[in-house]
Amino acid sequence: MTEAKQDTHLIEHTLDHVEVLKGHFLHAFRDQVRLPNGDTATREYVIHPGAVMIIALLDDGRLVMERQYRYPVKQVMIEFPAGKLDAGEDRLACAQRELLEETGYRAKEWAHAGVLHPVISYSTEFIDIWFARGLRLGERRLDEGEFLDVFTASLDELLAWSREGQLTDAKTLTGLLWLQNHLSGSGPRQWQSVG
Amino acid sequence: MTEAKQDTHLIEHTLDHVEVLKGHFLHAFRDQVRLPNGDTATREYVIHPGAVMIIALLDDGRLVMERQYRYPVKQVMIEFPAGKLDAGEDRLACAQRELLEETGYRAKEWAHAGVLHPVISYSTEFIDIWFARGLRLGERRLDEGEFLDVFTASLDELLAWSREGQLTDAKTLTGLLWLQNHLSGSGPRQWQSVG
Repeated sequence: MTEAKQDTHLIEHTLDHVEVLKGHFLHAFRDQVRLPNGDTATREYVIHPGAVMIIALLDDGRLVMERQYRYPVKQVMIEFPAGKLDAGEDRLACAQRELLEETGYRAKEWAHAGVLHPVISYSTEFIDIWFARGLRLGERRLDEGEFLDVFTASLDELLAWSREGQLTDAKTLTGLLWLQNHLSGSGPRQWQSVG
Repeated sequence: MTEAKQDTHLIEHTLDHVEVLKGHFLHAFRDQVRLPNGDTATREYVIHPGAVMIIALLDDGRLVMERQYRYPVKQVMIEFPAGKLDAGEDRLACAQRELLEETGYRAKEWAHAGVLHPVISYSTEFIDIWFARGLRLGERRLDEGEFLDVFTASLDELLAWSREGQLTDAKTLTGLLWLQNHLSGSGPRQWQSVG
């Protein structure tokens, strides 16, 4: 992967781009593309503004988690706090806003963990992942119509729930991988202090 | 999480269910729901048949991987082999079919690793994750219009790429968490032989 690679045998080129759904939330397009062999094909996908997820570490090593009913999968899911970017919003500012609104926590220090793409076959969505520490609990301010429980869990509990099938949210599972590697000292991590 | 919990303060109930897009691939609905406080809200989401992903372990410990252009994110992505379930298809049968079609490998032994939900806010999709070992290379048979590179990588290489931001696909990152735990001996794993 380190050498420069020519990917012309894989890349698809846009021929046409048509809006097929402008919903309250979902915004979908159907593109015609030219395949690597010159044939054409159709690609349908959702345009998404992107999101952030926060891995918030309490001083005792426990994590700030949420339980939230997710209507499409008809289950209460265990998740790291997360939320969508507002138009033009800075990613770290969004992470600070979402952590405070959903859980009531402010963090003194932040470190960027990475980016994940949750659904590369039919959405443009990316999720920017942040670590937060130096937490102080204030008062949460949920959005209108938002209902969720906040609780804390240890990494061992979260890993056990993932093995037992009680934790199946891909962004949260990906966060556990980053957290495990972070705690084992792998990979660089630059913390920045925030007013 | 171990005790029985009443989640009536979180759960949403369907009031109305309307198809808003029947595309070639995307099938989307807009539901009206009753919120826990009695108010109503709108939920838009994609109906998906579900998918499988295969973590295929070669005898030398390397993994069978793919590089594939993913049009919505406009990038060539590093992924574990995966594919959608056909209507009524058995999940293990689908995993065997997708591994063979996309990579040319057949596996003698299979073990179910777990389930993940890639995008719980706007899709019903689940991905069933399987380990495969005892691999023999035959001939791959890609679907019409499918273009991808097959290669092998070690777990250390994959973890390094995840840290460096070259591997950002959430299903694949989740697979790395399961693989790491599997190799460290955590969690039960029952292998079944397949003709």
